[in-house]
Amino acid sequence: MRRIEIYDTTLRDGSQAEDVAFSVEDKLRIAAKLDDLGVHFIEGGWPGSNPRDAEFFREAKKLNLSRSVLTAFASTHRPGLKPESDANLKSVLASGVRAATIFGKTWDFHVKEALKISYDENLKIIKNSISFLKKHLDKVFFDAEHFFDGYKNNPKFAFKCLKAAEDAGADCLVLCDTNGGTLPDEVRKIVKEVIKFTKVPIGMHAHNDADCAVANTIVAFEAGAAHVQGTMNGIGERCGNANLCSVMANIQIKLKHRCIPEEDLRKLRDTSRFINEIANLSHFRRQPFVGDSAFAHKGGIHVSAVQKKPETYEHIRPELVGNSQRVLISDLAGKSNVLRKAQEFNIRLDANSPELQSILQKLKDLEHQGFQFEGAEASFELLLKKSLGLHRRFFDLIGFRLITEKRKGNQPSVSEATIMLKVGKKIEHTAAIGHGPVNAMDNALRKALEKFYPELKNVSLYDYKVRVLTAGEGTSAKVRVLVESGDGSAKWETVGVSENIIEASWQALVDSIEYKLLKQEE
Amino acid sequence: MRRIEIYDTTLRDGSQAEDVAFSVEDKLRIAAKLDDLGVHFIEGGWPGSNPRDAEFFREAKKLNLSRSVLTAFASTHRPGLKPESDANLKSVLASGVRAATIFGKTWDFHVKEALKISYDENLKIIKNSISFLKKHLDKVFFDAEHFFDGYKNNPKFAFKCLKAAEDAGADCLVLCDTNGGTLPDEVRKIVKEVIKFTKVPIGMHAHNDADCAVANTIVAFEAGAAHVQGTMNGIGERCGNANLCSVMANIQIKLKHRCIPEEDLRKLRDTSRFINEIANLSHFRRQPFVGDSAFAHKGGIHVSAVQKKPETYEHIRPELVGNSQRVLISDLAGKSNVLRKAQEFNIRLDANSPELQSILQKLKDLEHQGFQFEGAEASFELLLKKSLGLHRRFFDLIGFRLITEKRKGNQPSVSEATIMLKVGKKIEHTAAIGHGPVNAMDNALRKALEKFYPELKNVSLYDYKVRVLTAGEGTSAKVRVLVESGDGSAKWETVGVSENIIEASWQALVDSIEYKLLKQEE
Repeated sequence: MRRIEIYDTTLRDGSQAEDVAFSVEDKLRIAAKLDDLGVHFIEGGWPGSNPRDAEFFREAKKLNLSRSVLTAFASTHRPGLKPESDANLKSVLASGVRAATIFGKTWDFHVKEALKISYDENLKIIKNSISFLKKHLDKVFFDAEHFFDGYKNNPKFAFKCLKAAEDAGADCLVLCDTNGGTLPDEVRKIVKEVIKFTKVPIGMHAHNDADCAVANTIVAFEAGAAHVQGTMNGIGERCGNANLCSVMANIQIKLKHRCIPEEDLRKLRDTSRFINEIANLSHFRRQPFVGDSAFAHKGGIHVSAVQKKPETYEHIRPELVGNSQRVLISDLAGKSNVLRKAQEFNIRLDANSPELQSILQKLKDLEHQGFQFEGAEASFELLLKKSLGLHRRFFDLIGFRLITEKRKGNQPSVSEATIMLKVGKKIEHTAAIGHGPVNAMDNALRKALEKFYPELKNVSLYDYKVRVLTAGEGTSAKVRVLVESGDGSAKWETVGVSENIIEASWQALVDSIEYKLLKQEE
Repeated sequence: MRRIEIYDTTLRDGSQAEDVAFSVEDKLRIAAKLDDLGVHFIEGGWPGSNPRDAEFFREAKKLNLSRSVLTAFASTHRPGLKPESDANLKSVLASGVRAATIFGKTWDFHVKEALKISYDENLKIIKNSISFLKKHLDKVFFDAEHFFDGYKNNPKFAFKCLKAAEDAGADCLVLCDTNGGTLPDEVRKIVKEVIKFTKVPIGMHAHNDADCAVANTIVAFEAGAAHVQGTMNGIGERCGNANLCSVMANIQIKLKHRCIPEEDLRKLRDTSRFINEIANLSHFRRQPFVGDSAFAHKGGIHVSAVQKKPETYEHIRPELVGNSQRVLISDLAGKSNVLRKAQEFNIRLDANSPELQSILQKLKDLEHQGFQFEGAEASFELLLKKSLGLHRRFFDLIGFRLITEKRKGNQPSVSEATIMLKVGKKIEHTAAIGHGPVNAMDNALRKALEKFYPELKNVSLYDYKVRVLTAGEGTSAKVRVLVESGDGSAKWETVGVSENIIEASWQALVDSIEYKLLKQEE
């Protein structure tokens, strides 16, 4: 079993993603979370490039990280300067870190075209930058920028650059596929060549432009790399970096080598989601290992097999990364899916009961109408409970009216809802406005019910999705509405289907409220 | 240069994705789009598994695909039956295809645990199923389910299964990594072993559970595979399938072998987005090759370097896949797009004119609001013409009112619209009902305008889509409405955006009608 260093650059390279912008506070929270996960290094930023990163390093001292080493990023010093007078290198020392990563050019084309200096001067710059930092820090890593492109263009020069870093005392030579275009077979060959050539540990830093970042990282590890860099969820510039969630899970669970303690790997899904939340990114359902769909089974045959022997359709046990098996309800579903769900909901249901038959028939009818319960488990639970008489009515609708009006051609529309309903023997009649008819209806319904059920005050709608089901019928097409609701501690999803978007939204909203009230009683 | 077969299973394996549910109409539109892209095979579905897929194959005959071969999917026949009495195999013949893919077990564990039959019987079933279909079809491919797991567990048996398919005349032996857990080095070794063993072409079918589906497909190709399966955008069960966008771009642009004609590869981004739209999935910004961020540069050193020499930070030229370089802080990319579009619409527009500046500013504002004109060129043409004074008003709205009412809790909602508008000096005031408020509004607007513009009688709405733009705001989220209209000879798409779905629909409907009237005049 080999041990491998996990170097996380979510806070530096990850923040280069087009849709990501971390505040100092965000970065501090993420650093603490990564420390708890137990990655070996957390690259906090480039203190010389912007004041926010410099501030982060000042604040980060208070974090008292217990497991991870915080590192700073910087470039080699500017041509024509001495290292000790280069602001970018000085800011690394000022940041207070004990480890740093310095990136330098190793592609002759870049030295010529971008830096516009001689090859020898480039070597000297690498050597001097690293020697300077090594005098003050415990560890200095060398990020060999564009190494793979450089190696393919001029291997001798690329090797000389690594040698300059090695001679200066670099603790790791990190081969960067900066443009992300290298394919796995090339990575394997090139890493093997480099390993023959040096005694310093080799690292891998992959980008995902060819959709191979994780594979390239794994291949480099198998070829002998001892250090891998990446970001959580693969966020980063352009197509992103190697996704550390996948890299760690592959190395530890599938290749059986050691990244972080096994019990920490179980925090992977939670950490991945935490970082999405902070970055304000939605969770990618199909994300390997940690996504909602990663261990979700839809087909009937799959479901019955996977319940008996999970390894029939699961490459690892989802619990190892903090995920879990899910069985989806869909038109491909059979008996076993429904039974399995009933069990999850603590509903007793016998495999041979007439109730199960009638539930299956009802499901088939509803799915034919366009209902889909995969994204709406709360509606499914209500459906089961209603079919089995385990549900009571919390209110009766007497009627509602929605009005959307545009009074002048150039004025915005205004929406208003009135609603009349009955709780027990009491009738409530009220009205509300909203951004559009659905929002007005939602507001009016809550307003009417909160009198009777104050617990609904904590409920809010998180997400609202509309899907047009029947193409080719224009505005009279059938729509499916999915609503996600929550009360701070739990989240649930409900569904409605109709040719009338108001009717479909109404169904989903009512399910959402009934589900909350039902759970409250239980 | 080797030639490779591209086998698309978006319509079958792709539809297994948790958040995807294609209607028959959706599938027909996607098949036509894939044919236009020029993939070699389009797997339309599993006709024996559900009536929707059977209907698709009936309708697909009218598509007259010119470049792609449509295939049907099925399992080997059931134990204990003869192939000619197996409903699943018979449905393949009934579907009218000339090529099919049959999947069968090759992992001894599955034969024992799932099928519960002897190894010999499994071999016989594979052989008989393929022989039977080969009598009637031009091509039969064998999907060796779980081949990699099977090979690792019992290579002799796995080979025997392939041999049974070969003996029966299979045209390709497709090695499936059904659980998606195999890593690239294993794929390379195993594919090389299989290729030594058989003369039949080898195919690869990869899933993405280890985040290596694209890499595994490329590695298999480099090891000698001649046929690759995957889905557009990688949609599929659990973590999805190998993403064909990445696979084709890698093989063709980076490895320089032939998938589809070079000029068709330029449709890749457009095809990818089309399929997301039909599947109602948002575009993944960081998707390699075709994503919005794939060639986006965030400023600083990268930008100036990449503008002078793109290869400094781009692994391929984005135009090769229909994408383009984006520099995030400047609007250079926008300018050339607008000029190109103006030319398409026969609008004279000078690159240095103040009008162009104001159009760019307007576009930026609209995009910030959530407008997107990629799926709505008619709205974009109207926008250009309005900005340049090339458009006249056909009517003025005075006002409208939409009422949706539910008079009893258990009765359906009823929607009614009233509208008042002016054409020249004549005022028209009318009313209509509809399936939901948008349909009622659409009906009332047409009723009012048809008096003045009888040509609108030929116009109908083909499709209506709603996309919720702002997650996390429940029913007050902003929505984008896309409307597709046509008059029998032409089709056009328009867009509207608002927090109020009625307002957004109104914008798109008005654009649709104005576009028709404008074209009529021209």
